[in-house]
Amino acid sequence: MSRFLIPKHRDLVPYTPGEQPRILNLIKLNTNESPYPPAPEVVQAAKEEAARLHLYPDPTCKGLCEEFAKVCGVDPDEVIAVNGSDEILNFAFMAFCDENTPAVFPDITYGFYSVFAELNGVPYEEIPLEADLTVDPAKYENINKTVFLANPNAPTGIPLTVAQIEKILQTNPDNVVLVDEAYVDFGAESCIPLIRKYDNLLVTQTFSKSRSLAGGRLGFGIGCKELIRDLNTVRYSTNPYNINRMTMGAGIATLKRNDITLANCKAIANTREETAKKLREMGFTLTDSAANFLFAKHPRADGGLLYRKLKERGILVRHFDKERIKQYNRITVGTPEQMKKLLEAIRQIMEEEL
Amino acid sequence: MSRFLIPKHRDLVPYTPGEQPRILNLIKLNTNESPYPPAPEVVQAAKEEAARLHLYPDPTCKGLCEEFAKVCGVDPDEVIAVNGSDEILNFAFMAFCDENTPAVFPDITYGFYSVFAELNGVPYEEIPLEADLTVDPAKYENINKTVFLANPNAPTGIPLTVAQIEKILQTNPDNVVLVDEAYVDFGAESCIPLIRKYDNLLVTQTFSKSRSLAGGRLGFGIGCKELIRDLNTVRYSTNPYNINRMTMGAGIATLKRNDITLANCKAIANTREETAKKLREMGFTLTDSAANFLFAKHPRADGGLLYRKLKERGILVRHFDKERIKQYNRITVGTPEQMKKLLEAIRQIMEEEL
Repeated sequence: MSRFLIPKHRDLVPYTPGEQPRILNLIKLNTNESPYPPAPEVVQAAKEEAARLHLYPDPTCKGLCEEFAKVCGVDPDEVIAVNGSDEILNFAFMAFCDENTPAVFPDITYGFYSVFAELNGVPYEEIPLEADLTVDPAKYENINKTVFLANPNAPTGIPLTVAQIEKILQTNPDNVVLVDEAYVDFGAESCIPLIRKYDNLLVTQTFSKSRSLAGGRLGFGIGCKELIRDLNTVRYSTNPYNINRMTMGAGIATLKRNDITLANCKAIANTREETAKKLREMGFTLTDSAANFLFAKHPRADGGLLYRKLKERGILVRHFDKERIKQYNRITVGTPEQMKKLLEAIRQIMEEEL
Repeated sequence: MSRFLIPKHRDLVPYTPGEQPRILNLIKLNTNESPYPPAPEVVQAAKEEAARLHLYPDPTCKGLCEEFAKVCGVDPDEVIAVNGSDEILNFAFMAFCDENTPAVFPDITYGFYSVFAELNGVPYEEIPLEADLTVDPAKYENINKTVFLANPNAPTGIPLTVAQIEKILQTNPDNVVLVDEAYVDFGAESCIPLIRKYDNLLVTQTFSKSRSLAGGRLGFGIGCKELIRDLNTVRYSTNPYNINRMTMGAGIATLKRNDITLANCKAIANTREETAKKLREMGFTLTDSAANFLFAKHPRADGGLLYRKLKERGILVRHFDKERIKQYNRITVGTPEQMKKLLEAIRQIMEEEL
């Protein structure tokens, strides 16, 4: 720390992203990326934009927002494009929370929410998950705070229904309810159809999971025009050219091949169910994940130990050292081949070393 | 504005970037982009990364920071990569300014500084430029505020010398002095060699001007390790994956062909001097710009009128509607051919319409 850092940031503990090691032949199941590379049209679009890199991108992201709006069934002025959905989460903390409007989210959820709250000096409440690691939606009704809910939740993968979220929206009419749909495409219901009914609903989505663009950094916010306008005020006050040309081109091409996204999501959901079944047969307990990851623990295997033993075998999963979930590992659903190798490795570890 | 926007942001007036119109055959001299497209190696590197877009980028930006550090003659932990230099300017306001540590910058400079200050609730002083539009460095000595100086300044293009800035650094040992070197490569001196001598110096650079990557969004901060660590704390608390894969690849390839950057800068400086000479012959008054733009006014031509008449002819320059400079236009230095067309258009306008 330098002696110039202002006092309010001196205790800031930044978010720790999952490891991105550069180990050859690693089976990387730790950051919930898609195992399927982008379509050739996406690579081609990025390349075409690369030839024009000397020119600024369109700060309004017009073409990209139009294409995303079309896929979502909303209007272009009901969406905002961001440099990965982390950016819009931070914008939401900046725009819709302050000392008089605290934030609320589950104690076990995307670990970045509390970092954004700390960064922006926003008081926050963390509501404990139930014993079975589910979110009890009733605890968010009439709460009078800005609500942040990942749906499905991370790292459990457990979704709420749209009807459950609708009740939270109805009972908090004077607070923004942000529904972080990073993992929605793998089997949960999206709240986007509700944006015209509730002016306090902000949905966020990312292209890092279902759309094979984690390396491109692209996310979106979807909400009523006024909320989107506020978020654009923040965007134009921080980084108006937040989306580069290549990502813009790649994003448009990805949206034009939405059929590929849908097919990939279906394949991943199938692989998830098959893998979950086999893990259960091996004695694992799993949450009912609707996401592109599994959250699993075994009565005989310490979570941290299993994580390390898998890593020794070149398989990287994610382990969180938090009391309530430290017996679990979060395992990204990869290709069927990767899952086969994972299951073999776990079987070996369980038989030979534990 | 929605009814949810927090009070402190209700009066926020965002920065207005230069127009990015999509008019065919437009001669675009309004946002100081390079007229020279990226090298084939840069396009190739971006394309190769596009094929891996399903995987997150390296949040540490290791390879990119190493390559940039090499070109600058510093260590990798003395640099931080950002999503365009606007991002690091905002980070600096976040990290090194607060109600007790106000900011100071010239009244006429990059228009985003005051927006960042407003966004972050930072009090700020604007010191008027001298009558000849120069910065008087003495006015920043012993000022006891976080100093923001664009060098060369925008939109005048007038540089300070490193010796002048060094005195500001020496007389403000307890405040960060940020030197925004967006335009330094076209003829001014960089302060980077001073970072080991002054722990309060933060230099920022962009790849949008001299390095033909405006569309890629890439900027850097250069300073002592402790300052860089603070900025990384902020980065990891807002958007750890701020640089996408393609830009990372394109940036590395750009740095490996630094010879092309140097040649482009030389060509642009030559074109600038030739164009300035011809404009002076036509009766224009110009600042002594060391940047990739000219700042020019004519006693017979109202600045706003000339801007509009050029636009009618398909030539876009930038006009600022600020009292002291509204007779001027800021003209990006393009190719010699573009400058020839600009001069012809101005000649026609002056002869036929004014």
